[in-house]
Amino acid sequence: MARASRSRRLTSIGDFGRLELEAAFERADQISSDAWPDQSEALQGHTLLTLFAEPAGPSQTAYALAGRRLGADVADFPAGESGGFADALVAAEAMGPDILVVRHSAPGAADFAAERSGALVIGAGDGAREDPVQALTDAFVLRRRFGALDGLRVAICGDVLHSRAARSAVGLLNVLNVEVRLAGPPTLLPADADRWGVDVFHDLDEALEACDAVIVLPAPRERISGAFVPSPREYAALYGLTAERLSRANPGAVVLHAGPVGRGVEIAADVADMAEASLIGDQAAAGVAMRMAVLSLMTEWGGNRMGAA
Amino acid sequence: MARASRSRRLTSIGDFGRLELEAAFERADQISSDAWPDQSEALQGHTLLTLFAEPAGPSQTAYALAGRRLGADVADFPAGESGGFADALVAAEAMGPDILVVRHSAPGAADFAAERSGALVIGAGDGAREDPVQALTDAFVLRRRFGALDGLRVAICGDVLHSRAARSAVGLLNVLNVEVRLAGPPTLLPADADRWGVDVFHDLDEALEACDAVIVLPAPRERISGAFVPSPREYAALYGLTAERLSRANPGAVVLHAGPVGRGVEIAADVADMAEASLIGDQAAAGVAMRMAVLSLMTEWGGNRMGAA
Amino acid sequence: MARASRSRRLTSIGDFGRLELEAAFERADQISSDAWPDQSEALQGHTLLTLFAEPAGPSQTAYALAGRRLGADVADFPAGESGGFADALVAAEAMGPDILVVRHSAPGAADFAAERSGALVIGAGDGAREDPVQALTDAFVLRRRFGALDGLRVAICGDVLHSRAARSAVGLLNVLNVEVRLAGPPTLLPADADRWGVDVFHDLDEALEACDAVIVLPAPRERISGAFVPSPREYAALYGLTAERLSRANPGAVVLHAGPVGRGVEIAADVADMAEASLIGDQAAAGVAMRMAVLSLMTEWGGNRMGAA
Repeated sequence: MARASRSRRLTSIGDFGRLELEAAFERADQISSDAWPDQSEALQGHTLLTLFAEPAGPSQTAYALAGRRLGADVADFPAGESGGFADALVAAEAMGPDILVVRHSAPGAADFAAERSGALVIGAGDGAREDPVQALTDAFVLRRRFGALDGLRVAICGDVLHSRAARSAVGLLNVLNVEVRLAGPPTLLPADADRWGVDVFHDLDEALEACDAVIVLPAPRERISGAFVPSPREYAALYGLTAERLSRANPGAVVLHAGPVGRGVEIAADVADMAEASLIGDQAAAGVAMRMAVLSLMTEWGGNRMGAA
Repeated sequence: MARASRSRRLTSIGDFGRLELEAAFERADQISSDAWPDQSEALQGHTLLTLFAEPAGPSQTAYALAGRRLGADVADFPAGESGGFADALVAAEAMGPDILVVRHSAPGAADFAAERSGALVIGAGDGAREDPVQALTDAFVLRRRFGALDGLRVAICGDVLHSRAARSAVGLLNVLNVEVRLAGPPTLLPADADRWGVDVFHDLDEALEACDAVIVLPAPRERISGAFVPSPREYAALYGLTAERLSRANPGAVVLHAGPVGRGVEIAADVADMAEASLIGDQAAAGVAMRMAVLSLMTEWGGNRMGAA
Repeated sequence: MARASRSRRLTSIGDFGRLELEAAFERADQISSDAWPDQSEALQGHTLLTLFAEPAGPSQTAYALAGRRLGADVADFPAGESGGFADALVAAEAMGPDILVVRHSAPGAADFAAERSGALVIGAGDGAREDPVQALTDAFVLRRRFGALDGLRVAICGDVLHSRAARSAVGLLNVLNVEVRLAGPPTLLPADADRWGVDVFHDLDEALEACDAVIVLPAPRERISGAFVPSPREYAALYGLTAERLSRANPGAVVLHAGPVGRGVEIAADVADMAEASLIGDQAAAGVAMRMAVLSLMTEWGGNRMGAA
């Protein structure tokens, strides 16, 4: 494939077209089943810097691990320390990374980085805007379960307003011909949701009708005790996913949650732990494989560092 | 050796039988003297995750280093961040680690992890319960000095109540036919110490009589200024190890302390720095070797990841 | 070269003689242009520990990256945690590092480490005393631009009193026959500056006259609002480097700043961003190369660990 036809960034799910998406699913599949031979050499001699302005979490560990399994030199650049993000970026960029993984609370931060860096840039969350790799991971897990995504009906439930993963998931599932439904309290749905190409529900039971999969979003305590929702109790009563509610979905329907899981709040414990229906464990496992897929593919496509714009 | 006969966890010193202990001492010996050829390849392609709920300290560095020297992909999973330990464990487990090193303030946390993980699990301290690798390290250092441990008399002095290393040391030394004495103020000895198979002393001078080794425990300031002991001054007067006191032990007796060393409190500075008698430097050096020994042996015994229980 | 003739430490720029300086510049040059073949194998089997008592910053990332690119096993030893620096050092030393990189707020801390360690010790800043690798990096960047340093005139401007980089830079530039000028408010120049073998100015315009390079020092807010200087506004007016002021320097003069850059305070934004004159980006890029050069050369010269003194 010609180099110029490929993006050097993955900061929005829209940066990957159908071919790139297909390649990512296939590569993650090969990695998951140990069928990809280049695993420990693919990024030999390449430098991966994680530039996280928010405290380290599982996602940063997953990127570090994915990079090391591919043979990259991985280091963390403490973005949150002194000075602004722009200065941190200049200093990080000067270390000549081949790949920069960026997380920051400001929407657009990853694009800001991509415009100033000669590295491949992956957005690992910029505020509530996008987290494309999480969306890829979720779609990958669904694809493995159902064989194909085409024609499935998926409900995304809860605090869509503050969820970068939801935003990326909608973008991705739309491209893959999945019918998407958003369900949540009006205060936690984006004002412009009707322009997202999805169906919007305020009643969870209605939304679940004949669904194949339910993506449950985290409901952080601070969002459901005050301005947006009166109390966790009320939230659980109206929007908590119970086994009874799930029975409205199709037989064989599955449940996804990217964690941290609020048992008894947005999801009942027995639903989170359902052996067949819950794909929560699969998601986390697939997260490292998908990161490895994205890192290795973008390196193949994008070649080495370019001079910064 | 048959695989089924081996434990996939080292969360308590009792998880290792005599054969495993012997193998650990021998491997650590080979590693210390650069006589073990597989050093940098033993864990190639294996993932080691450190899951420390307490702030990073020397022990975490030692595990990271031991893993890297063996060629493992090492990453830190920030267990203390958001959500509970159980959720952190699920997320860490999903990354498919071959080895999990766990530290947590709750007794039993490492076993909790071992029951839920397909990885080999090493407990690096769960509250005051156990720290088996520290005990192995101390025994290894004694073994190098004395040739054999059988028949030695060892005093463990100070805050036994809050010391996980002491608990593991007693278990280990008992198995190795070492005569163990505990010495400390009644408030800092466990209530059930008489059932530990040891002799209990409240007078340090008496306890040191004819000992071959003295393991001095840290006396954190908060434990010796109030509820347990009136003041550091009083603690030092009654339980500080001085050269004069040490003279009651056997000629050639040695002193151990796993750090951080409270000079002038639980141990006089000149005792800590005695060229011949103090094994404090040896302990720290042996710590990385013993971790490498344990990591490589358990990997050989336990093979690859199993599906989690 | 005979081993005994080489220092096992780089804690002061004086530890490198002319031959060592020349070798460092050449190696960094080869590394920067990918003309050095041993890049990923030079430190295979070697352990590098970073022992930073101050919070992690870009410099620690640069050392970790430099070590990893050379194939070393790199780990961070948390020096700031509990206990004193001396105890942290004992524990770190016991892990048998081949190279210790030390940062601490106390002047002399790196030498203190070098006297107690069998490792090669690199000082990455001890209070306001020295940061030799930063000075090497700056000189390297100047050398690349001007071909040779001999006979250049360089002004170092701002808070010289609290700058370890400035102290090391003066020592290095003196050896390399560069004419050095210090410029800053009397309260931010060291009292003994007249014995440094430099010319001292309190007027920036005068100091810049016919200079070839200007090293601008950071002016942290707390130093320029009170005891030393009345206000940032006044500091900027008197000592901020503007394009107009820079015009007093020689044509082709360059500007250096090791960051974090205080735009509008010690340096005008347009000067920091000048395409030709500003070497700020070059400095950061050269920082990793120079660290790789120093790590690999000292390892070649110093061989393996020695028993500690």
